[in-house]
Amino acid sequence: MTADLVLGDVHPALADTCRAAFEALAEAQQRYGRAELSAETRMGADGTPTMLIDDLVEQRILAAARTHGINVLSEEAGFVDLGSALTLVVDPVDGSANAAAGVPLSCYSAALLEDGKPIEALTCWLETGRSIAARVGEPAPYRTSGARRLAGQALSMLRPKHGARGDTAETWMQLCRRAGRVRILSSSCLEAMLVATGAVDAFADPGSDTHRLVDLAAAMVIMPIAGGHVCDAFGRPLEFDHDLTRRYSGVVAATRELADEIVEVINS
Amino acid sequence: MTADLVLGDVHPALADTCRAAFEALAEAQQRYGRAELSAETRMGADGTPTMLIDDLVEQRILAAARTHGINVLSEEAGFVDLGSALTLVVDPVDGSANAAAGVPLSCYSAALLEDGKPIEALTCWLETGRSIAARVGEPAPYRTSGARRLAGQALSMLRPKHGARGDTAETWMQLCRRAGRVRILSSSCLEAMLVATGAVDAFADPGSDTHRLVDLAAAMVIMPIAGGHVCDAFGRPLEFDHDLTRRYSGVVAATRELADEIVEVINS
Repeated sequence: MTADLVLGDVHPALADTCRAAFEALAEAQQRYGRAELSAETRMGADGTPTMLIDDLVEQRILAAARTHGINVLSEEAGFVDLGSALTLVVDPVDGSANAAAGVPLSCYSAALLEDGKPIEALTCWLETGRSIAARVGEPAPYRTSGARRLAGQALSMLRPKHGARGDTAETWMQLCRRAGRVRILSSSCLEAMLVATGAVDAFADPGSDTHRLVDLAAAMVIMPIAGGHVCDAFGRPLEFDHDLTRRYSGVVAATRELADEIVEVINS
Repeated sequence: MTADLVLGDVHPALADTCRAAFEALAEAQQRYGRAELSAETRMGADGTPTMLIDDLVEQRILAAARTHGINVLSEEAGFVDLGSALTLVVDPVDGSANAAAGVPLSCYSAALLEDGKPIEALTCWLETGRSIAARVGEPAPYRTSGARRLAGQALSMLRPKHGARGDTAETWMQLCRRAGRVRILSSSCLEAMLVATGAVDAFADPGSDTHRLVDLAAAMVIMPIAGGHVCDAFGRPLEFDHDLTRRYSGVVAATRELADEIVEVINS
């Protein structure tokens, strides 16, 4: 990889764990083949199988977090309690199927909590080193598109599939017909990053309940600061608790009005 | 952008026109806002409106080609005949809607012909500078996945839409159900690049007849060398002629068998 990691002024624990993920992914891709990287090694704390690539990157993040003495809530390891006031809620490799296969669309994405309350977040597109960050109470140097209606806008979605609530194919196609442009990048955190910076107007799980807290944690911090909105399509509150088996159908949108419209289609 | 352009040993006319596109895109994105870049300036030779971003990048490519004294067949300008034996068939910015909006998924993609026969091709992902190239009669340092059946594999597609032959929604969903993973990146040349390198198993326009020769030209050279196959879903021969108003539903697959299966679904 020729990419350089570009991080702004972020908390050292975010910066160091992000750098650990960036380096770990590059090394893993150099050392292992695609079949090895996607091999399932065990069951993760989120109730889905852990791929080797998830494990390799998470281990390096945990080691980096340990040097800062902070707790970690992560996709595979669950809650690692060091008794700190600070907790890193992290998706080590969002889009790990992409990363394992060689599709260069995967992210490190994390929120940093102090006494259970979010104070900062960072999402980094691992294959290019580009990142966005936000600190609660401070403005961000980027902004959503401000779009309020879906008609003619750019929408990213999870693929249509059978989920806990049945097949999302019909809902997916309804949203697709209403939008001007449609994409499936298979990395929710990258797609949320594109919404935050105004490149895409919205991103949604059209009702398959695939998202876990770690998929939405950074967006929960970043989106309100960037002028956008994040919610669950079925009205469940998005909370920073430690239960990674909870599922959501996340909707990340340029405005609250746009999120409401998408939620309405998903519930219709 | 922090990306560096990484080109292997390619024909100087390919290298120079690619570098021109790489620099022109970066400059355009720095100088103009998103609305300006996506504004339609005129009707292109391919029969679709030209965006400012297409124009800016194509002009730089034409200037670079002129210094080599070669003909160019390009999306917006059509055929520019300098009486050379060499012709560059080029898509200046494949995925220009992405590039204009700030979704970093767009490509320079070109085939170089000598007396009408392809001799070399280059596709470069403009936002990262990564590229693949191939020369007719020589092996390539990458290979498709070799997948022969769609079940469980990774498939990229154009979005479902109303095309010249009606709505592709049903076909799209059939292919989606059969595949293991599905993506829509909105850059056909980037998606073909991912097929060539084995990161994705196939890419298809599910019957909307959206593709023009410039969208498939590099893949027509690269895929056979990488072990893959490219064809039109409706059996029209893919030929290097000068008529950019011709439309195709391109299928780019890891193997001929996989392409055949996708073609069969599209025609069923």
